[in-house]
Amino acid sequence: MDQKQLQSLADFYKKQLLEDTVPFWFPRSYDEENGGYLLMRDADGSLLDTDKAVWIQGRACWLLATLYNTVEPRQEWLDGAKLGYDFLLNKCFDEHGKMYFHVDQEGTPLRMRRYFFSETFAVIAFAAYAKASGDPQAAKNARDLFGVCMEYAEGERKIEPKFENTRPTKGIGIPMIMINTAQQLRETIGDSRCDSAIEGWIKEIETNFVKDDIRCVMEQVALDGSIVDHIEGRTLNPGHAIEGAWFILHEALYRNKDPKLIDLGCRMLDYMWERGWDKEHGGILYFRDVYDKPVQEYWQDMKFWWPQNETIIATLLAYLVTKDEKYAEMHQQIHDYAYTHFHDKEHGEWFGYLHRDGKVAQPAKGNLFKGPFHLPRQEWYCWMTLTKFMKP
Amino acid sequence: MDQKQLQSLADFYKKQLLEDTVPFWFPRSYDEENGGYLLMRDADGSLLDTDKAVWIQGRACWLLATLYNTVEPRQEWLDGAKLGYDFLLNKCFDEHGKMYFHVDQEGTPLRMRRYFFSETFAVIAFAAYAKASGDPQAAKNARDLFGVCMEYAEGERKIEPKFENTRPTKGIGIPMIMINTAQQLRETIGDSRCDSAIEGWIKEIETNFVKDDIRCVMEQVALDGSIVDHIEGRTLNPGHAIEGAWFILHEALYRNKDPKLIDLGCRMLDYMWERGWDKEHGGILYFRDVYDKPVQEYWQDMKFWWPQNETIIATLLAYLVTKDEKYAEMHQQIHDYAYTHFHDKEHGEWFGYLHRDGKVAQPAKGNLFKGPFHLPRQEWYCWMTLTKFMKP
Repeated sequence: MDQKQLQSLADFYKKQLLEDTVPFWFPRSYDEENGGYLLMRDADGSLLDTDKAVWIQGRACWLLATLYNTVEPRQEWLDGAKLGYDFLLNKCFDEHGKMYFHVDQEGTPLRMRRYFFSETFAVIAFAAYAKASGDPQAAKNARDLFGVCMEYAEGERKIEPKFENTRPTKGIGIPMIMINTAQQLRETIGDSRCDSAIEGWIKEIETNFVKDDIRCVMEQVALDGSIVDHIEGRTLNPGHAIEGAWFILHEALYRNKDPKLIDLGCRMLDYMWERGWDKEHGGILYFRDVYDKPVQEYWQDMKFWWPQNETIIATLLAYLVTKDEKYAEMHQQIHDYAYTHFHDKEHGEWFGYLHRDGKVAQPAKGNLFKGPFHLPRQEWYCWMTLTKFMKP
Repeated sequence: MDQKQLQSLADFYKKQLLEDTVPFWFPRSYDEENGGYLLMRDADGSLLDTDKAVWIQGRACWLLATLYNTVEPRQEWLDGAKLGYDFLLNKCFDEHGKMYFHVDQEGTPLRMRRYFFSETFAVIAFAAYAKASGDPQAAKNARDLFGVCMEYAEGERKIEPKFENTRPTKGIGIPMIMINTAQQLRETIGDSRCDSAIEGWIKEIETNFVKDDIRCVMEQVALDGSIVDHIEGRTLNPGHAIEGAWFILHEALYRNKDPKLIDLGCRMLDYMWERGWDKEHGGILYFRDVYDKPVQEYWQDMKFWWPQNETIIATLLAYLVTKDEKYAEMHQQIHDYAYTHFHDKEHGEWFGYLHRDGKVAQPAKGNLFKGPFHLPRQEWYCWMTLTKFMKP
């Protein structure tokens, strides 16, 4: 890609973010009465449900504060971020400090789940809001909650297990989310724990999840890193592993283009593009079996929005750090597929759920699992990163 | 349908059951070494996983014992049922008498879940095996475990809740499974608790789940029977409600064609056929929204095998008890759709998971959720019921 192409791509992502994606969600989703955001919306933006998904409350707060921190200090975004910050802080924790998964409009709890992703998204929300507001208490809350997440991730703080201990496994999700959470914390308010923690989690992924001999990144493995040859153990999540790839490429950039990390991130991207790209219809498939056996999860060959977002970022970043035209071509393929099939030209934003053949399966823009995160993060990250690389 | 058509349909189901479906699974699935069955199989019957799903171990044991009791006293089936009975009894209960959901080949537990469907399927397995073997201990075990299920269903025995108590709901699944479990118990070894219990659960469904004003059967409701207008509360499961419809029609037959129960079962079938039948591609869709809003569950518009099986039974039974040709036509539609799209002409049995347009999404015949139950039960039940109705 030449400078002109890079500039045109940066302009495209900026325009999509600020004139299409963000205006779909805001200001109409601010819940001025109860705090937080009303994000469960149909294709046209009408409200499907007043409930609040705690993951997505955190992610939306992060987005608003990040726009304020990095795009422009628009008061609406700061006020909007504060709505989410206060709601998360005051409504989404139980009496033991564990965060809920699903609450109602007023913040009354509906469901607690046995993992700590609500907490990781609250960390990045608190950290970004702390930077935007300058509130030292928000910074302290972000750091304290990051400490809690570290304890969960290291097993020092226990969560009731969903499985017996017969065949213990570990997932790539924990090191991945911890890398990203630490990166966000470091880039907003800074935290001396982040560098070495990130180092350790990347090592964990490289050692236990990346299988060069079969060109694969496993989604879960036995505690010693071996493949668990049962249906669940064989199940790959290419879009997720590709998200992990760009977290590592992002770290490579932070470390002055560390060639080892560039190589690791690009290997992960290469392997899981081979596994996940649908050669027949385009787009990244949801699940695959490591040995190409049938996948049990029902939606295994659907196209969801977020694996495409993560692959758009990963291929662009791989291109920018390596200048290998292979990645520019992959980026163009996934970009064209995604904006052709997912983008709602009528109402803005993206549909979330396509059939394998690219038809829209259901048109909601927001629900318990989808909200203003993967798409606006992709558009924001690509725009910002292109801008950084185009600097003379 | 005239007598000749009924006979030809009975012959078809008998032939499919005994020459296609059952031979796909047995004898190859008997685990002579560890007990139980190896049922997680690919399209061609090769083994995908040695793990055992406790629901399906119970269902397969029920099937084998039922074939022995009602088709012919084939020693293979009795020996096969004993493999499952012993495995369930000796391997699938924890120290508190709660049954696991998922165990490995040897029966070492992998996962406990927070509901009691493993128990209900063990009741029908134990009861059918008790009748087949004449073993009084098996009969006692069936009755004792049915008592445990009654305590769970009535809330006297507690299961750790998955949700906070903010917006309590109840599902149609509990009264439905209890009706069928009690019917099976009554028809194998008899139990004096069954008649009045079934009466109560049917009343519960009629009063709280069947909504004549909007021609709908709800999958879940608030404790007072009102509709919970949030995404999950609005989600309908037409194939499941249609299964409930035929349990009630079956009860109508038992009670000398009770006209009130025939009317209730036919209303439930009518309403949910209207909601679930795919007018564009044929077949029963998985989930629908009561107000036609987008459904959140990812596989909502896929075609799964079991809703088709339950609808084949329900439409046939509705026809046989009412002689209304409308139901004969519905039966022909669903029968033709299902045997055209789901039946694997090469290897036998049915695929489980089709895209909305009827293409096979993944070809496994068995996994954690699919095994020898809905299809062979449908073929067996339709054959037996047709035979009963053709008697002079």
